[in-house]
Amino acid sequence: MANELLKGKKGIIFGALNEMSIAWNVAEKAYAQGAEFVLSNTEVSIRMGTINELAAKTGSQVIAADATSVDDLKNLFTKAMELYGGKIDFVLHSIGMSPNVRKGIPYTDINYPNFIKTLDISALSLHKILQTAYHMDAIKEWGSVVALSYVAAQRTLTGYNDMGDAKALLESIARSFGYVYGRDRKVRINTISQSPTPTTAGSGVKGIDSLLDFSERMSPLGNANAEEAADYCVLLFSDLTRKVTMQNLYHDGGFSSMGMSQRAIEQYNKSFEDCPGD
Amino acid sequence: MANELLKGKKGIIFGALNEMSIAWNVAEKAYAQGAEFVLSNTEVSIRMGTINELAAKTGSQVIAADATSVDDLKNLFTKAMELYGGKIDFVLHSIGMSPNVRKGIPYTDINYPNFIKTLDISALSLHKILQTAYHMDAIKEWGSVVALSYVAAQRTLTGYNDMGDAKALLESIARSFGYVYGRDRKVRINTISQSPTPTTAGSGVKGIDSLLDFSERMSPLGNANAEEAADYCVLLFSDLTRKVTMQNLYHDGGFSSMGMSQRAIEQYNKSFEDCPGD
Amino acid sequence: MANELLKGKKGIIFGALNEMSIAWNVAEKAYAQGAEFVLSNTEVSIRMGTINELAAKTGSQVIAADATSVDDLKNLFTKAMELYGGKIDFVLHSIGMSPNVRKGIPYTDINYPNFIKTLDISALSLHKILQTAYHMDAIKEWGSVVALSYVAAQRTLTGYNDMGDAKALLESIARSFGYVYGRDRKVRINTISQSPTPTTAGSGVKGIDSLLDFSERMSPLGNANAEEAADYCVLLFSDLTRKVTMQNLYHDGGFSSMGMSQRAIEQYNKSFEDCPGD
Amino acid sequence: MANELLKGKKGIIFGALNEMSIAWNVAEKAYAQGAEFVLSNTEVSIRMGTINELAAKTGSQVIAADATSVDDLKNLFTKAMELYGGKIDFVLHSIGMSPNVRKGIPYTDINYPNFIKTLDISALSLHKILQTAYHMDAIKEWGSVVALSYVAAQRTLTGYNDMGDAKALLESIARSFGYVYGRDRKVRINTISQSPTPTTAGSGVKGIDSLLDFSERMSPLGNANAEEAADYCVLLFSDLTRKVTMQNLYHDGGFSSMGMSQRAIEQYNKSFEDCPGD
Repeated sequence: MANELLKGKKGIIFGALNEMSIAWNVAEKAYAQGAEFVLSNTEVSIRMGTINELAAKTGSQVIAADATSVDDLKNLFTKAMELYGGKIDFVLHSIGMSPNVRKGIPYTDINYPNFIKTLDISALSLHKILQTAYHMDAIKEWGSVVALSYVAAQRTLTGYNDMGDAKALLESIARSFGYVYGRDRKVRINTISQSPTPTTAGSGVKGIDSLLDFSERMSPLGNANAEEAADYCVLLFSDLTRKVTMQNLYHDGGFSSMGMSQRAIEQYNKSFEDCPGD
Repeated sequence: MANELLKGKKGIIFGALNEMSIAWNVAEKAYAQGAEFVLSNTEVSIRMGTINELAAKTGSQVIAADATSVDDLKNLFTKAMELYGGKIDFVLHSIGMSPNVRKGIPYTDINYPNFIKTLDISALSLHKILQTAYHMDAIKEWGSVVALSYVAAQRTLTGYNDMGDAKALLESIARSFGYVYGRDRKVRINTISQSPTPTTAGSGVKGIDSLLDFSERMSPLGNANAEEAADYCVLLFSDLTRKVTMQNLYHDGGFSSMGMSQRAIEQYNKSFEDCPGD
Repeated sequence: MANELLKGKKGIIFGALNEMSIAWNVAEKAYAQGAEFVLSNTEVSIRMGTINELAAKTGSQVIAADATSVDDLKNLFTKAMELYGGKIDFVLHSIGMSPNVRKGIPYTDINYPNFIKTLDISALSLHKILQTAYHMDAIKEWGSVVALSYVAAQRTLTGYNDMGDAKALLESIARSFGYVYGRDRKVRINTISQSPTPTTAGSGVKGIDSLLDFSERMSPLGNANAEEAADYCVLLFSDLTRKVTMQNLYHDGGFSSMGMSQRAIEQYNKSFEDCPGD
Repeated sequence: MANELLKGKKGIIFGALNEMSIAWNVAEKAYAQGAEFVLSNTEVSIRMGTINELAAKTGSQVIAADATSVDDLKNLFTKAMELYGGKIDFVLHSIGMSPNVRKGIPYTDINYPNFIKTLDISALSLHKILQTAYHMDAIKEWGSVVALSYVAAQRTLTGYNDMGDAKALLESIARSFGYVYGRDRKVRINTISQSPTPTTAGSGVKGIDSLLDFSERMSPLGNANAEEAADYCVLLFSDLTRKVTMQNLYHDGGFSSMGMSQRAIEQYNKSFEDCPGD
């Protein structure tokens, strides 16, 4: 495709670990559409993952930052603005982690410092990014911020634990800050509620395979993958969505609007079938 | 229970066919709580069902009315107001029918006169009841109207066909008329979105058994039954819910807020198990 | 912009009356992005408006069709498929009209044949378009259908009358048909819930000026205009939104997620100010 | 009224400060309906308010607890279970506070330890109450927990600051814990989204008067007051709502379903009127 939807646009992309990451896919797609960007992740994730390959591929700089640290964020925005000689156009927030999920602690045994850590990493980090950018006036008028979310913000999924609460908080912060940043600087903020996606982060959730299968059969178009999610992010960064803000946008093959599909109920019905000889 | 939540209240209950009907259960519960009411249904339903037993049990009068006929409704409200020497306090709308569902016509082969019939019977009938009552000033200040709905208004269920659209329209009419009737006469209008319920009407929907099972396992408290739905209706007719209006209230054991439950996914997983010897 | 987001795509655009129309703007934007399309409207609208100018500008053919007539729709799809030598890629539904609104009949005095006409023109027409296309297999895999809606589908607005109900039904039909068309042919169907827009159709709603002002002040980014709506439609027709379906997408400067803005409440507060000398 | 909807039921009511408090009203209504309960609040609130009067009126014991302290909560549940010789039936959570709001710190200047305090007090406290009760098995089967919320969880209101985010998190926790507590012990958990209410807590929000006026004019039935909220809480504690769980229930005179009312737009229009002589 010869499109250059993001021609001349500069951004910061948080959360690319490896090529399974949605953020990785966003970087590739944004690059293909003419954008330049800084890649950011924590020191640990940079070491564990392969982000430097992505940086090489897309001619990007990697700047480490813990998105829960306002100092790190200030440093990141300062460097990005130096690099681009001014304000940036877009930010991707693809950050989430629950120590409770990681350690297999059930929702009824939650450790509260862990819970706060989940919220801080997965949701407050968005506020910190936005507040830092707001004070540095780091995002251009009609700039765009996207954070990745999941339907667990609205509907409880067994095993998803305190990440459901974190996503609800994330979406609320997007709305709350979306109001003030929109009103004051014309910056828009949205969340994309993505199908369950087999990334390194997603694979920590127990029973993810059955959920992926169920979700695939429930969704008339099937689950959306990381590459497709990246396309949608690119559109939200482009100038063609300037008046979309404070929204949670489902990108899920239709899952969120389904009560029951033919394919899912047929599979479900097989669970009641007797084996021959029973 | 010695409660008399509806003591002295008069109402009209539409839609009791037989003892499986939610409307039948509402009538019994409302009677137990001190209400008097007129029972109404179409001529055909009166003949096919056992509404006269219910009338005898609850000391009620049966007045036939086709809820799509404004003339029938005028006659019904006139007679009810004569009977009670004045305005009434509550109305239950438990009316729904789709000729397309009945005849097994799929959603992609819909016959449009049928579609309009579905909408007229299942949704416009609520507007006709309300407009008739509004013009006759037949409902007291702080009166209450409840219509029964289903989650298909928000989420598509295979086989539910044009009834999903009818429920969406029904809920919208409840909101739209709820605004004007509330503003002008302090009458409140709500819908209850009830679990799938094994009534005579519900049993027409294809694959209702699997759906009931899935819904039962998804809902942390299990499906709500007709008797429990009737309790909820009674509360909405009582003076304890005077400021609740224009709402769609889920009465479904938690189903509507679930993405995936442990019990449902465990059952679903069984569908992939091999039989011994496979 | 050198983008060609719709390069090679063929479509049908319903509802362009004159240059104020959203559909008109969609046609211009789609044309600029490389699409070819047939323009369709009723005979009366074609005569009253200036659609032929648009056709000339965009090299399009105008084919009259009453979207409530299945025969007209069959003829339209047949001709479009002949013209393009095969299936089409996208459809825009920008059709809505309420005889009750036009004649100033309040919601409590509704004439039921009018109400059904409102629903038939504004909502069932989408089902008719889709059912016709489905039977003729007229839309390609991964094709896209968009219908224009309004927040009145969720929240009652004084004066909007039975159009709120029609929009609720429209959005439900988009979901219901979105499920089957997605499952069977990978066609996606969405609605865009657009800011109040000063079009010829919109100007029929009483008190539209105050509403536009209030909505403008409530929305952090201001109301979205017809041109911006057209951009969003183009994106939904493009290959970059393939997994978005059965959604209602707010395109409204943030209005739908606002409870109260600073600008709106400041204006509201002025209403209580005394005049000097009072 | 001779009703005894809560006859024999035991509960814990958090958050009564003085007679303006919703929790105070709930206590009075619950008492009138036959319930016994422990009143709880922080030491400071007990000293600042008049909770002992309420205790005297309702024959209740006051047990101080900081709902962010798991130790305090364990002590409270232990004492309550001793007092009643067993499990309790209901809990009211009417707890919320934002240091950012109190200190007039705008949402774009948020102090993060404050933000976490807002979330801990206003939302995590519900999780702590539930987790404590769950581990002590302190709530009977079919017991009921209600937390008070506000529409700011869904729609941003200027000045409401991080309390909107806290309410979104609170509602999510109610859903998440509602699933596990319902599944394991048949306990239901809901939130009531109440009209803006002139309580001591509510009065901290800047511009609350205009908001109350606007909300009153937008709501067809007017704002719901604290006494009416208390009625609704009582119903949710009663046996008549056993299958309602994981819901956010608007108790707001219809506000949440309104886009624009006649009364509000008429008032708004006055803001544009010229003074005589202008």
